[in-house]
Amino acid sequence: MKLKTLSIAMMALAATGVAMADEIRTMQENENNWVSAAGNYNNQRYSKLAQINKDNVADLKMAWTFSTGVLRGHEGNALVIDGTMYVHTAFPNIVFALDLNNDGAIKWKYVPKQNYDETVPVMCCDTVNRGLAYGDGKIFLAQADTVLVALDMNTGAPVWSHKRDDPKRGATSTGAPHVFKDKVLVGISGGEFGVRGYVKAYSLDGKEMYTAYGVGPDDEMIVDPKNTLSMLKPIGKDSSLKTWKGDQWKIGGGTTWGWYSYDPDLNMFYYGNGNPSTWNPTQRPGDNKWTMSLFGRDLDTGMAKWIYQMTPHDEWDYDGVNEVPLVEQKINGKMRKTLVHFDRNGFGYTMDRVTGELLVAEKFDPAVNWSKGVSLKTGLHDRVAKYSTGRNGADVNTTGICPAALGSKDQQPAAYSPRTGLYYVPTNHVCMDYEPFEVEYTSGQPYVGATLNMFPAPGGTHLGNFIAWDARVGKIVWSNPERFSAWSGALATASDVVFYGTLEGYIKAVDAQTGRELWRFKTSSGIIGNVNTYKHEGKQFISILSGVGGWAGIGMAIPSLENDSDGLGAVGAYKALSSWTNLGGVLSVFSL
Amino acid sequence: MKLKTLSIAMMALAATGVAMADEIRTMQENENNWVSAAGNYNNQRYSKLAQINKDNVADLKMAWTFSTGVLRGHEGNALVIDGTMYVHTAFPNIVFALDLNNDGAIKWKYVPKQNYDETVPVMCCDTVNRGLAYGDGKIFLAQADTVLVALDMNTGAPVWSHKRDDPKRGATSTGAPHVFKDKVLVGISGGEFGVRGYVKAYSLDGKEMYTAYGVGPDDEMIVDPKNTLSMLKPIGKDSSLKTWKGDQWKIGGGTTWGWYSYDPDLNMFYYGNGNPSTWNPTQRPGDNKWTMSLFGRDLDTGMAKWIYQMTPHDEWDYDGVNEVPLVEQKINGKMRKTLVHFDRNGFGYTMDRVTGELLVAEKFDPAVNWSKGVSLKTGLHDRVAKYSTGRNGADVNTTGICPAALGSKDQQPAAYSPRTGLYYVPTNHVCMDYEPFEVEYTSGQPYVGATLNMFPAPGGTHLGNFIAWDARVGKIVWSNPERFSAWSGALATASDVVFYGTLEGYIKAVDAQTGRELWRFKTSSGIIGNVNTYKHEGKQFISILSGVGGWAGIGMAIPSLENDSDGLGAVGAYKALSSWTNLGGVLSVFSL
Repeated sequence: MKLKTLSIAMMALAATGVAMADEIRTMQENENNWVSAAGNYNNQRYSKLAQINKDNVADLKMAWTFSTGVLRGHEGNALVIDGTMYVHTAFPNIVFALDLNNDGAIKWKYVPKQNYDETVPVMCCDTVNRGLAYGDGKIFLAQADTVLVALDMNTGAPVWSHKRDDPKRGATSTGAPHVFKDKVLVGISGGEFGVRGYVKAYSLDGKEMYTAYGVGPDDEMIVDPKNTLSMLKPIGKDSSLKTWKGDQWKIGGGTTWGWYSYDPDLNMFYYGNGNPSTWNPTQRPGDNKWTMSLFGRDLDTGMAKWIYQMTPHDEWDYDGVNEVPLVEQKINGKMRKTLVHFDRNGFGYTMDRVTGELLVAEKFDPAVNWSKGVSLKTGLHDRVAKYSTGRNGADVNTTGICPAALGSKDQQPAAYSPRTGLYYVPTNHVCMDYEPFEVEYTSGQPYVGATLNMFPAPGGTHLGNFIAWDARVGKIVWSNPERFSAWSGALATASDVVFYGTLEGYIKAVDAQTGRELWRFKTSSGIIGNVNTYKHEGKQFISILSGVGGWAGIGMAIPSLENDSDGLGAVGAYKALSSWTNLGGVLSVFSL
Repeated sequence: MKLKTLSIAMMALAATGVAMADEIRTMQENENNWVSAAGNYNNQRYSKLAQINKDNVADLKMAWTFSTGVLRGHEGNALVIDGTMYVHTAFPNIVFALDLNNDGAIKWKYVPKQNYDETVPVMCCDTVNRGLAYGDGKIFLAQADTVLVALDMNTGAPVWSHKRDDPKRGATSTGAPHVFKDKVLVGISGGEFGVRGYVKAYSLDGKEMYTAYGVGPDDEMIVDPKNTLSMLKPIGKDSSLKTWKGDQWKIGGGTTWGWYSYDPDLNMFYYGNGNPSTWNPTQRPGDNKWTMSLFGRDLDTGMAKWIYQMTPHDEWDYDGVNEVPLVEQKINGKMRKTLVHFDRNGFGYTMDRVTGELLVAEKFDPAVNWSKGVSLKTGLHDRVAKYSTGRNGADVNTTGICPAALGSKDQQPAAYSPRTGLYYVPTNHVCMDYEPFEVEYTSGQPYVGATLNMFPAPGGTHLGNFIAWDARVGKIVWSNPERFSAWSGALATASDVVFYGTLEGYIKAVDAQTGRELWRFKTSSGIIGNVNTYKHEGKQFISILSGVGGWAGIGMAIPSLENDSDGLGAVGAYKALSSWTNLGGVLSVFSL
């Protein structure tokens, strides 16, 4: 009996792939590599490498560079595993394996076959892709057409693939897949087409494990009304359904295209989801749960341990998809397992990631005006009535709302340094006018329902700040203004040098303590990718994907938008970008 | 009477724009600028700048970089005038004015409106453009659709434009315009479509001055049967017409898309023209004069002073368009005003540029096998019968011909250093099989008439050499093998450092005396552009356009060709290129 139990346990272990989990966790310990989107499970985008330091960073020079051959916006960053760099592109989502022993010569190339006409027209905010995942000898790519494909890391040959949704109904894929332990997780885009968001888990050999929706019936959401908490209380039965009018939840949005993190000790993963569909709040009364929410879920089962909704009944498109770095930090004198989240709505949240308890919620851009603050007891905003876009019904323009729809921060991920205890956050400093209008749902057609106009926050002309944030107390420590939104992911390093990119195309190095600029270099195109680092043959390298585009750069990515106010409102505010840079996906690698 | 004569002379001076000629000639003396395609009238691609030298070139690092936003092959180089850099792109031939005081921020951008469907399909060898010309406050662009446009150098606004031909009949434009004194000269492409080549001269304010054809009646060629010389003898009446069967000269080719040079003292300009149409020699008996020829013409009138045909009755597509740098050098103990020309046919020619006397003609690639040599008396080749592609009529394959159709050198221009007295020549080391076939002429349809297969020259696997050549005696001084053709224009500098690019994307610096490699850097894409240099705020910069493509890179530029043997025979030989680099037009600028 005992033997049999053991044997079953071992089979279970094998089935759940614990051995593989160890592989990835071990690989993440090796700071020479960069094995996952954020470098590690906790999404800190921090590297222990310190060869490049404050004294020598001014001598940093480009080591080699590589054109991806794709022009539209390049978000995300490359992976580096044992002398090979894996680079992705915007649509058509080519993957290159580059040989670091040979100045980036191409070991293999994977070119997906995707239907352009079906896919590209339903990508709301440029044809971006946020990168790759590694696991079990495979490189995972989430193609725009919703195919998840696993490529042999040595040859690029597809090992398995699965088409999880249909661009014909507006579902596409822009987020990076994430491999945690023995599973690959992947979300979905299409909130502007009424796609009901979900996260899907596969085993690393391609079995579908579960699909967890953000809105809808309890079983489809994989929640337990009694044990799934929100603000430390059970969410109760039909917690989502109750907050929607009729069947609206079926086209209710809450898509899942952001950066996921994972706590192997708790075996929980974390992510946020996006806006309720449509952007016209008057059309969808209720809290629209659980859109705009953070989720903490059990990796094995998908079961939600807790949910927190940052923006109930969104009226501004303040998606909650932004990254959720995991940090152990002392809050009010007590060490807590926290997660931190810089929401589009302009608030920086610090939460207990075991229970979902809200610990800190403060504005990380002083311009934020739609809410006076968040109650740590209720988790709710003290909303400013005049910035409600739905208060007067449709077809009424509400002006001067801060932040704009693309938020005080969008997908561009922050970095955390355990040395300084600070977060380094690329932010937007943009406000908007917003006018909702009635829109009828038609599958595969835009389901936006609002027109927007964006502009710099009052009192200045700059559209962004790169800030250092103390998440223990919710305070800005220093703030560097940026001409345009800082739309590039940051990197913190053990030498207290922090890196990020700018939309003009500069990669910059700043002092982690003070924000003082230590170095800058003008790359070939505006940067919406994320800086990362690795070591090869004893030398530390900094890598960045340039390639302007994305929501902020949509006017450049689709020049036909340049002369109208389309592009979901971004075009006007970022029009000056075309005086600074130009399209073109290019990887740049720097070293001393 | 005397006064009147003077006044007329002055009016004539004004009319011919001598004042403006001085402007350009003076500007060329300022080594901080790079005001014309080759840097100066004499096409030496030599710079007096010497801040970057043999001792410090290893420390050269990228200063800034700029994506053009255009993917196909980028030939040519930027112009630099007083703190502004003017950069062109492959089709659609965008022009950027970049601010050197601001890391290359965009001062203005000109985006031509061109008909893609009419133009691009009739561009034989990628959608390249070889660059811009400056004159009289205007930047001249020869658009692919044969429009020559003059742009205000300060605003980019079109000042005048003229459409000189019609892509519907296969005429396009790829060559750079050239401003000499008071005229802008521009050629035409389309030899693979039966276009009869010509050079057209305009005044700088847009008046058509003359059109000089390479084949046809004497008046259309602007030749004087008695005074236009070839091999020091008058060419006689109907020198071209006599060498064609019937009206074939009307679709006879001889296009003019190469690099032009100018001798202000002689007031003569020099250029070569291309292949006779079709590539099937059996279809067009005769010498096909004056295709494959060098011309020395009077700038004011266009009158040909002399012509020399390098390859009478071409059987291999050995276009004569390559550059003709002008050098004063001692030949057989006597100082001569010479021009030097590295022809596609594999011979390096040194000629007296006053008279067209042939002084030296030797192979610059030992692999050349179709001719044993050139008689300096007759100017004719000692042809090797078995490499005649027409000897057996159509549909017979002739194998092992060296060089291949793209020649021992194609358009990639050589540099000359007056310090070493040597030419630095990027060459091809490629052979071919060639099978002519009958083709009927249809306006606007390919009129090629041969299938080709290219491969490395015997005894090796490399496809190129970068060589130093002594044109006084016709000898290779040193030769560096290159994996692929060296398809990038070279730069020689006063510190005896020579630069060039490679198809893998490397920019290299070598010792002018020995060829020893001093520095290399892997740029973002394969290089088919030309290196140049300038000084800004006391600092010397090296600039290069990357962006693989062109004839050698056609398999990358048009991926659909990758799996067949099309691309005018280049695809097979250069297939391995896709393991090294990727499409993408990017300017890279380097400094110490």
